[in-house]
Amino acid sequence: MRLAVIGIGLMGGSLALTLKRKGFVSNVIGVDNNTQHQAEALALGLVDEIMTLEEAVKSSDIIAIATPVNIAEKLLPTILDLVDQQVVFDVGSTKESIVQIANSHSKNGRFVPTHPMWGTEFSGPSAAQQDAFLEKATVICNADKVDADALQKVEALYKALGMHIVNMDAIKHDIHVAYVSHISHITSFALANTVLEKEKESDAIFELASGGFESTVRLAKSNAAMWVPIFMQNKENVLDVLNEHISQLRKFKACLEKENFEYLSELIENANGIKRILK
Amino acid sequence: MRLAVIGIGLMGGSLALTLKRKGFVSNVIGVDNNTQHQAEALALGLVDEIMTLEEAVKSSDIIAIATPVNIAEKLLPTILDLVDQQVVFDVGSTKESIVQIANSHSKNGRFVPTHPMWGTEFSGPSAAQQDAFLEKATVICNADKVDADALQKVEALYKALGMHIVNMDAIKHDIHVAYVSHISHITSFALANTVLEKEKESDAIFELASGGFESTVRLAKSNAAMWVPIFMQNKENVLDVLNEHISQLRKFKACLEKENFEYLSELIENANGIKRILK
Repeated sequence: MRLAVIGIGLMGGSLALTLKRKGFVSNVIGVDNNTQHQAEALALGLVDEIMTLEEAVKSSDIIAIATPVNIAEKLLPTILDLVDQQVVFDVGSTKESIVQIANSHSKNGRFVPTHPMWGTEFSGPSAAQQDAFLEKATVICNADKVDADALQKVEALYKALGMHIVNMDAIKHDIHVAYVSHISHITSFALANTVLEKEKESDAIFELASGGFESTVRLAKSNAAMWVPIFMQNKENVLDVLNEHISQLRKFKACLEKENFEYLSELIENANGIKRILK
Repeated sequence: MRLAVIGIGLMGGSLALTLKRKGFVSNVIGVDNNTQHQAEALALGLVDEIMTLEEAVKSSDIIAIATPVNIAEKLLPTILDLVDQQVVFDVGSTKESIVQIANSHSKNGRFVPTHPMWGTEFSGPSAAQQDAFLEKATVICNADKVDADALQKVEALYKALGMHIVNMDAIKHDIHVAYVSHISHITSFALANTVLEKEKESDAIFELASGGFESTVRLAKSNAAMWVPIFMQNKENVLDVLNEHISQLRKFKACLEKENFEYLSELIENANGIKRILK
């Protein structure tokens, strides 16, 4: 099977590496408008060759769109125009608007909207990992509108990566990821800005920062080109969660200001409930 | 050397285990007012015997206070009253008020205020780790008020753990840890409460939560009995940082509401600056 990867960064590169290592694909064609990324992807062995978008679609069996979500939306109609029997899927973090775009195209049966729940805070071809995705969930949306053979191929691909599949409505997906992913990024970006703004002695940060700090700010290294379009597309849900998060933080603030340590203790014990969900 | 550990939880238990394994201490005496923790600490081999506070102080060469910070403040004068040539140190996350208490005691030269920058979100004897502390920093405060032999012994102990020592003024320490530790805990508790409040489908959290979410909320598993006294003692600094953090989050909110994606991108790029500090 020949795989075309549109956008050879963290996600596209990791897909390419891992699927090739597993023997699921024999050949990987890369498409990227960044010539430095093209060269890196070839040098790192993520892809076997670089082609234009049109050549790549024509020369492959399965096409992964792994660009930022705004670019994926722009490219999808063009790619579907070019497609015959090929299967197309994306890996974007928002699903409602790309599903709408797909469903207004006559060849929407060839496109499987997906979101593998894996990533790191790093980006570009050099961030690709060959043991990515394992034991994580992949969301597939719009399965009832997708051709049976296309769905089957994409499901087989994710199973080859060791992932399990969760079928979900696109609107519901976007609400859930606002909670379990997008808000974590905003709070991490804001925390980094807080520390960078107020803590002028960066030596002190470097010396004293322990695992806890690193853990809460590591997502702040994430790439703006990827995240701004996600926040744009999932604006309403992210705002809902962000408003709630700010009001939760204000409760901590009020407890400290009023020295209400009993309620502070209750807030912390309530937060401990996350143990039920995350082991 | 005989070590007494007052409070045999995550910190005290890890100190005991690691120092014994390294051969720095020959014998560990445990003191804990929780009988279940006493039994667990013996069963896990964290301590060789359990004694009362008075017996333990009399029978040891070096005494680690590893209780929540409010208890440490209460116990310190009692322990110093009992001390002759022994060395006492604490491992608490706040330093200003315990240094004040120490300095009003005639035997303050025997007490070394310290804060090893290591921990996990777990608590109790079962959370103890035998390879803890390695390559992290330990803050020592008030070094100029401490007897030379006491300081030397505590420094040797931390070096045996593979830590490096940072001398710091207690007031400065409390400001820095508000940034690099305390705010991370508040934001993590608040994030857990946000998700638990708004995301009623906990199956969805469980299925979809990826490494990023886990990383930003893991500190929310931390223990209220430990953290409430820390926030109480460091109230002013924590409020300063918390106010800044809320105002940073409001900038993200305003960007989304006004669809100012250029400024959103700037905020994220600014946050990426944390890469300069955390590799």
